[in-house]
Amino acid sequence: MKNIKLTALKDNEKTVVYVGDTTIGDGFCVIAGPCSVENEKQTIETARAVKEAGADMMRGGAFKPRTSPYAFQGLGLKGLKILKKAREETGLPIVTEVIDTRDVPWVCEYADVLQIGARNMQNFSLLKEVGKTRKPILLKRGMNSTIEEWLNCAEYILDGGNPDVILCERGIRTFETYTRNTLDISAVPALKELTHLPVIIDPSHAAGRRSLIQALSLAAVAAGAAGVIVEVHVDPAEAICDKEQTLSPGQFSIMMKKIRVLHEFMADSE
Amino acid sequence: MKNIKLTALKDNEKTVVYVGDTTIGDGFCVIAGPCSVENEKQTIETARAVKEAGADMMRGGAFKPRTSPYAFQGLGLKGLKILKKAREETGLPIVTEVIDTRDVPWVCEYADVLQIGARNMQNFSLLKEVGKTRKPILLKRGMNSTIEEWLNCAEYILDGGNPDVILCERGIRTFETYTRNTLDISAVPALKELTHLPVIIDPSHAAGRRSLIQALSLAAVAAGAAGVIVEVHVDPAEAICDKEQTLSPGQFSIMMKKIRVLHEFMADSE
Amino acid sequence: MKNIKLTALKDNEKTVVYVGDTTIGDGFCVIAGPCSVENEKQTIETARAVKEAGADMMRGGAFKPRTSPYAFQGLGLKGLKILKKAREETGLPIVTEVIDTRDVPWVCEYADVLQIGARNMQNFSLLKEVGKTRKPILLKRGMNSTIEEWLNCAEYILDGGNPDVILCERGIRTFETYTRNTLDISAVPALKELTHLPVIIDPSHAAGRRSLIQALSLAAVAAGAAGVIVEVHVDPAEAICDKEQTLSPGQFSIMMKKIRVLHEFMADSE
Amino acid sequence: MKNIKLTALKDNEKTVVYVGDTTIGDGFCVIAGPCSVENEKQTIETARAVKEAGADMMRGGAFKPRTSPYAFQGLGLKGLKILKKAREETGLPIVTEVIDTRDVPWVCEYADVLQIGARNMQNFSLLKEVGKTRKPILLKRGMNSTIEEWLNCAEYILDGGNPDVILCERGIRTFETYTRNTLDISAVPALKELTHLPVIIDPSHAAGRRSLIQALSLAAVAAGAAGVIVEVHVDPAEAICDKEQTLSPGQFSIMMKKIRVLHEFMADSE
Repeated sequence: MKNIKLTALKDNEKTVVYVGDTTIGDGFCVIAGPCSVENEKQTIETARAVKEAGADMMRGGAFKPRTSPYAFQGLGLKGLKILKKAREETGLPIVTEVIDTRDVPWVCEYADVLQIGARNMQNFSLLKEVGKTRKPILLKRGMNSTIEEWLNCAEYILDGGNPDVILCERGIRTFETYTRNTLDISAVPALKELTHLPVIIDPSHAAGRRSLIQALSLAAVAAGAAGVIVEVHVDPAEAICDKEQTLSPGQFSIMMKKIRVLHEFMADSE
Repeated sequence: MKNIKLTALKDNEKTVVYVGDTTIGDGFCVIAGPCSVENEKQTIETARAVKEAGADMMRGGAFKPRTSPYAFQGLGLKGLKILKKAREETGLPIVTEVIDTRDVPWVCEYADVLQIGARNMQNFSLLKEVGKTRKPILLKRGMNSTIEEWLNCAEYILDGGNPDVILCERGIRTFETYTRNTLDISAVPALKELTHLPVIIDPSHAAGRRSLIQALSLAAVAAGAAGVIVEVHVDPAEAICDKEQTLSPGQFSIMMKKIRVLHEFMADSE
Repeated sequence: MKNIKLTALKDNEKTVVYVGDTTIGDGFCVIAGPCSVENEKQTIETARAVKEAGADMMRGGAFKPRTSPYAFQGLGLKGLKILKKAREETGLPIVTEVIDTRDVPWVCEYADVLQIGARNMQNFSLLKEVGKTRKPILLKRGMNSTIEEWLNCAEYILDGGNPDVILCERGIRTFETYTRNTLDISAVPALKELTHLPVIIDPSHAAGRRSLIQALSLAAVAAGAAGVIVEVHVDPAEAICDKEQTLSPGQFSIMMKKIRVLHEFMADSE
Repeated sequence: MKNIKLTALKDNEKTVVYVGDTTIGDGFCVIAGPCSVENEKQTIETARAVKEAGADMMRGGAFKPRTSPYAFQGLGLKGLKILKKAREETGLPIVTEVIDTRDVPWVCEYADVLQIGARNMQNFSLLKEVGKTRKPILLKRGMNSTIEEWLNCAEYILDGGNPDVILCERGIRTFETYTRNTLDISAVPALKELTHLPVIIDPSHAAGRRSLIQALSLAAVAAGAAGVIVEVHVDPAEAICDKEQTLSPGQFSIMMKKIRVLHEFMADSE
């Protein structure tokens, strides 16, 4: 780290972010849900499933940044309304992505946590805009970004007056092709020594393969992460996006149990 | 390339982009100017110097995406007004970056070419917004983006109805630290076989070292690029940003002569 | 993986490698010791310390592949004799690197496990030579090598008639500079689904920072690795190589306890 | 560069390497030939074709480092004898790879220039061994190696008493998949300011695509490289290795003419 004084690096007490009845940065927080909100049935059923399995929050995208302009771009406002219904049904707070400065004010009416996606990590206009809100921000690491650049992006938000930033490691781009990206697990202990902000991991986008999600989630617990965000779909084979990396409710439920007992063990043995 | 039908890949005639009295995609276009507009004097003097040396257009940033929130963020509207004055003085068309969807309409009143920076290459909201304008778009490659992803971003603009996209290779992020980034010179012939859009290179951001700019610019000519965009400042030692990679007017002038004769030679020997 | 039939990929029973009285691929194996053998005192004292803390084997380099020709290149034969003494004192099997085809026969007289270092992963002559021995081979992943290339290197050894290959993930080279390399933790579950060979991790070379070793080792346990290899020196501040990433005996001892209880917990909860 | 005093970095006169009747480091040297020596007919015919087109030296592999142990590993001694015959027929000096310390003495009897391949760049035993010979060494850059590491490897050879090192940039490994590797063209001017050793490029392995070779070779000339090494095969469709990146004699001949006139133009305009 260069010799810079960032609020993110200050020797503060650990930041605990409060979201509804739950927290991030204190215990182990599991956020689960579909890549994108496809329709009401899919979303509500998935919400119920992840709630039952013990998730703390729900994720789901209404605005989807997609490589191709001809791919599904998300349901927009309609999607946000479905997410609101999912929250009413299950009580789970909603984490959803915002991708345009103009959308920030009204997306805040539906979201409990605003997500800044990897491709927008250095969209500084957007960072400034969400820094003005009073919603917690889940800031994904850009897939080509150093830890130092990432912390500077968190600083844009903190500098705007919003103290509630959750860092999310989601894999970086490397030459390896067996996985979609390379999960930088070292970022977890590295950030714990650098910043007071909580750090979670996204094993779904990192691995891009369903079969690796559980092992990576358990590794995240052992490495001291504050949580995970995972893709779950009531019917992965029918998911519009990311089906290769999406867990079924059954797979998620098994993993949740393992996560909970491991986290309890780790907490006890400290 | 996946088996996708992109307008960018269509077997069209080569796209020639018209900007004021000049063109990109036909001959060799040199765009030069400071990293950022700092004040009127610096900007006008630099504009005159690059004009005299033979540049075809002027670059200059009024909105600066900076790693740190505490770094100079650009002069905004005031900077655009200075750029307008530089155009009036020299006749050079202005290339300037836009970083927020909300700014697109009014930045169009000042810019001749809108630049999408590397960090915003996959800011799809911004791509859609500039796709609605009738200004040429200089689309920089994201520093971690594949050629395929880049062409898909061009497609967002084309799909919006704007046919005038200029691709700009500006170095990709690798493990090498001697240079700021690694100029992917192969992208030039690769894009020439893939797309009808013109491709230019930015040796300044790629190399991050003044001493390498000329050799890379000549390599770009020989590889068949449609132009270069280079950082020039009337007094590099005093530049607010990127001073290590900025040419003085004298250095630029020497390089311009070499570029012109080499391009003429290449054109003749085809 | 391309559609190739590698012995390494065959649907065999899990390979368990026997080394003296211990095994790799069955339980969790901890290999510890100094980067290089510097002298008898340092080596024997470190050996005793890691033995007491509960290590299963000892590592130590007599031939050091160094970036610069003017850096310490290792003690060679003298170093191997010291390692032999360390084994006699502690009973710990010795893991040591071989870097030249001509040295293989006589290094076998001292080593219990031959290490192929990251820089020699694709030194195919060396792989063929160690494939002819009957010593277990610890094959480090090249820092720029894909999992597929790595498995092909294991195949060179297996094809030579030596079935005892231990794969060691030691971090890959990426753009991140906070850590020395990026530990590819996903390689652990990936290899478990691809090959019957055991996979261990080297958090010392991956992180390059002492403060991250414990968290990464615990992550390796949780991810299902078969072991770790870590650098320990009786006096890290005086180590000739890698002092930034070397644990003291005290730090190693604390970590060992955590590793053992976590592994026991993971084994029980399966 | 760290503050190290390398012979390679000394402020010496430019090194010119003499090979038979030709030189590298003075003018523009073209080395051409097949990836591997397959048989006498293919080799001699290719040698004649590249000679006729104006190549300065011939390349051809007798020992092939291959990802898979089941791929063609080269003809060994038999291949070297064929290369010797090719030299007798055409007068072209022979560049061929050596991969094992044990082979260095006898390979020297056949080769005019010893090549150290990318995978062996940090095989320090091999570097020391070729440093003892009096043959010029063509040292390829490791595909994951920094310029600093590469110069240190040259130093191993110089330190052995062999002053004739030719550096060869052959593409580095990045995330881009359209090309086989990413040619780091900036390495050419970077090395020209760092070292007195000549630097050539290998566009064939960098691009991995026949259609890009000519543009990259011309870029190398313009960037100031001392030469290129390219793969040519009398019948590319039948080549055992690298057929996608191999030029036919006809394609090579057209390119040679363009290279020669461009180099002449560059030399004149300095």
